[in-house]
Amino acid sequence: MMKEFDFIEIASNIFRKSGKRKEEVILGAGEDDCAVIRLSNRYSKYLVLTTDSLHEKTDFPEQMLPFEMGHMALAVNLSDLAGSGARPEYFLYTISLRDGIDENFFRQILSGIKSLADRYDVEVVGGDVDFGDELYISGFAAGFTERFVPQSGAKPGDRIWITGITGKAQLALEVLLSGKERSEVPFLKSLLTPEPRIEESIKASSYANAMTDISDSLAISLNLISRKSGVKIEIFEELLDLSELTNFVEYDKALELFIYGGGDFELVYTAQEGEGIEIGRVKEGEGVKLKRKSGESTEIEFRGYSHF
Amino acid sequence: MMKEFDFIEIASNIFRKSGKRKEEVILGAGEDDCAVIRLSNRYSKYLVLTTDSLHEKTDFPEQMLPFEMGHMALAVNLSDLAGSGARPEYFLYTISLRDGIDENFFRQILSGIKSLADRYDVEVVGGDVDFGDELYISGFAAGFTERFVPQSGAKPGDRIWITGITGKAQLALEVLLSGKERSEVPFLKSLLTPEPRIEESIKASSYANAMTDISDSLAISLNLISRKSGVKIEIFEELLDLSELTNFVEYDKALELFIYGGGDFELVYTAQEGEGIEIGRVKEGEGVKLKRKSGESTEIEFRGYSHF
Repeated sequence: MMKEFDFIEIASNIFRKSGKRKEEVILGAGEDDCAVIRLSNRYSKYLVLTTDSLHEKTDFPEQMLPFEMGHMALAVNLSDLAGSGARPEYFLYTISLRDGIDENFFRQILSGIKSLADRYDVEVVGGDVDFGDELYISGFAAGFTERFVPQSGAKPGDRIWITGITGKAQLALEVLLSGKERSEVPFLKSLLTPEPRIEESIKASSYANAMTDISDSLAISLNLISRKSGVKIEIFEELLDLSELTNFVEYDKALELFIYGGGDFELVYTAQEGEGIEIGRVKEGEGVKLKRKSGESTEIEFRGYSHF
Repeated sequence: MMKEFDFIEIASNIFRKSGKRKEEVILGAGEDDCAVIRLSNRYSKYLVLTTDSLHEKTDFPEQMLPFEMGHMALAVNLSDLAGSGARPEYFLYTISLRDGIDENFFRQILSGIKSLADRYDVEVVGGDVDFGDELYISGFAAGFTERFVPQSGAKPGDRIWITGITGKAQLALEVLLSGKERSEVPFLKSLLTPEPRIEESIKASSYANAMTDISDSLAISLNLISRKSGVKIEIFEELLDLSELTNFVEYDKALELFIYGGGDFELVYTAQEGEGIEIGRVKEGEGVKLKRKSGESTEIEFRGYSHF
């Protein structure tokens, strides 16, 4: 029977001894009471901190692999940093294991964390393992930026940009929950190993006025920007590219998924000019509207799908 | 029925709107994707990060009050920062609630966090609430220091200092688990609302060679320092003040509690000169020894009591 100490030792070996270390990380994962990071080498104007956690029962579909759970635990935190325009640097986690999770399962979770961390040069500088009734992974990420982008900075006249098509993760989830095999599910990667938009965020951080990630739904992200910035947002149906979604569902369902589906980890930002997909405009006023092709204007409500 | 959003709103109100805000915290708890902290105002040489989490079943005795759970969730993290010599600055948490925890219980947990945070000028800059099978609180703390104190820096010739008597929390736990009422338990505060040694840590950070907090046991902390520093540690029984413990237990039991009891949140550090209670010496060699009053030398093992 593996004990807490054994699991922590495995984690230390994976995160501390394998691969490169950042020069400014003086004490990293499992080495001391805390992680210690020299600031003189990598000093930006703002330190950006976030936390997000995942539960087996609400966040991990039955068909999800442990590698994907690890990926997701880091991705949700990196996506938050991306939403603020910060370059991610350091990650710490706590994993609560339950009966039935063996060493191999645990190693795969860590491997999912490490693989994504390495891709974006994020160092895992700390962690903790314990035991409970349910698999639970809590993550904390820290990053730096010279300029941060809040949800509250949208200005009338800004255009609204997204970094990719939304609705894919929700569609994948619905197909998966209907009982289909993994191989039959479209956009499975959007659901199980979504890629946080790090590079896009860093680029946009130099010119975007408002930004956030789209984790719950495009609708919720737009409503947050509208409320916090005190502006009206108008989205144009004719700018929404539903062609990938309509390969699998009817048009109206595709539109619903695009606007209210969760889990895609794209970014939405407002700026005079941008990159990616332009979907609407910021105006004076309040509320979030969908300008239909018919000319009609309907409200985009504050709702989405955050868990299943 | 309160939903996740309601709990998060309560938390935002408690941590964001009440009381003072640090000038350098541009975006705090619940305001945006992340917390954003301006570094130019409060720039030290090292950023120090830690995480620690608590489970209802393993970390909270039945008689523990929700206020005390909140206190403890922050205290374990502040004690880690203290073990490295860092001044604590920012805290983020994730709380996983279960059925049966109502708004009042939740508010008291947060109140326990806030009360301790305010005492040491720590700002709660982020958090997350969700639901699971068990009450679980995960915390993440960040601090700064001009000089950090690792576990690995002990030098032959150093004296060994502790910031207070150990064994009290363990004694309190044993009495509590024996079925006594809270009012009958000695040193209950040491067990349920231990005070992290922040000021002592900051003072010692300027001159200590090695330091760590004593959360699992004095024995484990000394063994960590001995192993990581590559030194021998000798503790003198005649320097151990057991008088508070022997009011309640026999001498041998008191000695066992002092050395192997967990949960006191004191610090142990090595330095030529120090403050607090001197208990031994660092020598060349390896291992941790107890020099008995009889002249005999016995081994201090790597063991303690971390959970109950």
